[in-house]
Amino acid sequence: MLSELIKGIRTQSRSSVSQAISLIENQGVEAAELLSGIHPFTGKAYRIGITGPPGAGKSSITDQLISHYRSEEKTVAVVAVDPSSPFSGGAVLGDRIRMTNHFSDKGVFVRSMATRGSQGGLSVKTQEAGDIFDAAGFDIVLFETVGVGQIELDVIRAADSVVVVLVPESGDEVQMLKAGLMEIGNIFAINKADRPGANKLMITLQNILSTLPHDAETWIPKVVHTVATEGKGINQLSTLIDEHRQFSNAMGITCEKQDDRYKSKVMELVTAKLLDSFWKEESSVELDGEIAKEFTQRKSPYDLVQQLMK
Amino acid sequence: MLSELIKGIRTQSRSSVSQAISLIENQGVEAAELLSGIHPFTGKAYRIGITGPPGAGKSSITDQLISHYRSEEKTVAVVAVDPSSPFSGGAVLGDRIRMTNHFSDKGVFVRSMATRGSQGGLSVKTQEAGDIFDAAGFDIVLFETVGVGQIELDVIRAADSVVVVLVPESGDEVQMLKAGLMEIGNIFAINKADRPGANKLMITLQNILSTLPHDAETWIPKVVHTVATEGKGINQLSTLIDEHRQFSNAMGITCEKQDDRYKSKVMELVTAKLLDSFWKEESSVELDGEIAKEFTQRKSPYDLVQQLMK
Repeated sequence: MLSELIKGIRTQSRSSVSQAISLIENQGVEAAELLSGIHPFTGKAYRIGITGPPGAGKSSITDQLISHYRSEEKTVAVVAVDPSSPFSGGAVLGDRIRMTNHFSDKGVFVRSMATRGSQGGLSVKTQEAGDIFDAAGFDIVLFETVGVGQIELDVIRAADSVVVVLVPESGDEVQMLKAGLMEIGNIFAINKADRPGANKLMITLQNILSTLPHDAETWIPKVVHTVATEGKGINQLSTLIDEHRQFSNAMGITCEKQDDRYKSKVMELVTAKLLDSFWKEESSVELDGEIAKEFTQRKSPYDLVQQLMK
Repeated sequence: MLSELIKGIRTQSRSSVSQAISLIENQGVEAAELLSGIHPFTGKAYRIGITGPPGAGKSSITDQLISHYRSEEKTVAVVAVDPSSPFSGGAVLGDRIRMTNHFSDKGVFVRSMATRGSQGGLSVKTQEAGDIFDAAGFDIVLFETVGVGQIELDVIRAADSVVVVLVPESGDEVQMLKAGLMEIGNIFAINKADRPGANKLMITLQNILSTLPHDAETWIPKVVHTVATEGKGINQLSTLIDEHRQFSNAMGITCEKQDDRYKSKVMELVTAKLLDSFWKEESSVELDGEIAKEFTQRKSPYDLVQQLMK
């Protein structure tokens, strides 16, 4: 029963939350009803995105942030997005490790979602998982992605605050991709900062940041050194996240983000429904008929579409 | 005039080909007419995808393959897809370098297309650029991507033969992502094979490949050592590409790929048109009106969509 499930989510029952996320992963009518049912209870959790190149230590940073927020009595849910690409590497086993660290803690919930095979729908599904955690009363939802593709960037852009995790060796990448990095990151953590080059990267980043407009309406991204495996710099990192949160609240940016998520969701649903009703038997048969012809004898895709739309 | 432009493309005029690609990059009605107009002249070029992690030497491999095909009097066009992600690195300057090597050669055309900002439409646009090169009579179209995101994978999957470029140090990634790699690669080039570990990676790959079904209908991906900067292994690589091409032709796989590209194109166009006609003023105003309300007072996205669809 759906009302039972929603009740379970509202009381933070682990099995209800699990079941609800599986439901949205499989989509279907029930998922829609569930998400409609929990809508009034959402909008309270703070959403933090954590991204960076493979091997930068995102899992360790996430792990440490969980411990930090738990020490403040906040409950934390993690949506770990597994890589969509055969080259993105890392992170695949990350959440199993985190799971062990916080396994017995009822205030922590880790769920991983794979991008593989989910053509485009993933950024919506991760948001929906976030909505379930939100309705379940989790204070913080962390979205962790390896940050290498469009899907992962969509996931991250939907977060309220974004932490980009780098390593001292990331200097060249940073130089090459200034604009892109500045666009998505609110806080930069130079992790493994006990290795050579950490100060140099800090200076490089700050030089780039100094070119941003320094007015009261613009958040200037902050940079921090961390050694996540030893817990170093985590307090400072979480303080910077808090500062960004307060700034965004004050400037109305948090509300804008919420509106954007709402809007994206509506648009995604409209697209899915329009396609569903268009690709009924008749159109599919017509397309198959055209494909059955010799390639050069076919109508051009443009002409065929014009005919299908009539 | 469109007919003039098509005539220019058919005579491989560089300025016409350039202009045509700019036209499809900007989309619009003229692009649709152009692509309809050239459709009967397409379907002849062979499409080769080249992908791999940043720094593996894809640009050098591409460069050497161009020289190889030119020595066989074949004309070659390259569609280089620039990274969509701030972390993918590499390749950004690649095509400028290649441009210099083949600058004065009329039988070579290099065009790069950026994924940044093109939400999803890119894999279609690269195919359309391929269609223009195809209609212009280029024998080979190379699609080069840094292969880290969904968009790049879509670009690569549409190719007739796919070369995955690795380096001796790629062993861990290969182990971790067996299935994904085997799924997209038809030929694996272990580039920079003069560095330690090249033989070990070769054995690792062959072990993985030995688990594939060895029947007459399945192409067993091949592995080759290359040192692209010195031209080593390029003949062998191109021989393997030829073998895969012959195999795919014989098994009907090349035709299937062509059908898939046609079908994807039709579906993409239908989606674009449906969305265009749905998001007229009335629906947009209704969505904006809902967003103007307090978050918890809004209809859930699911309920709003149901209302919009009426």
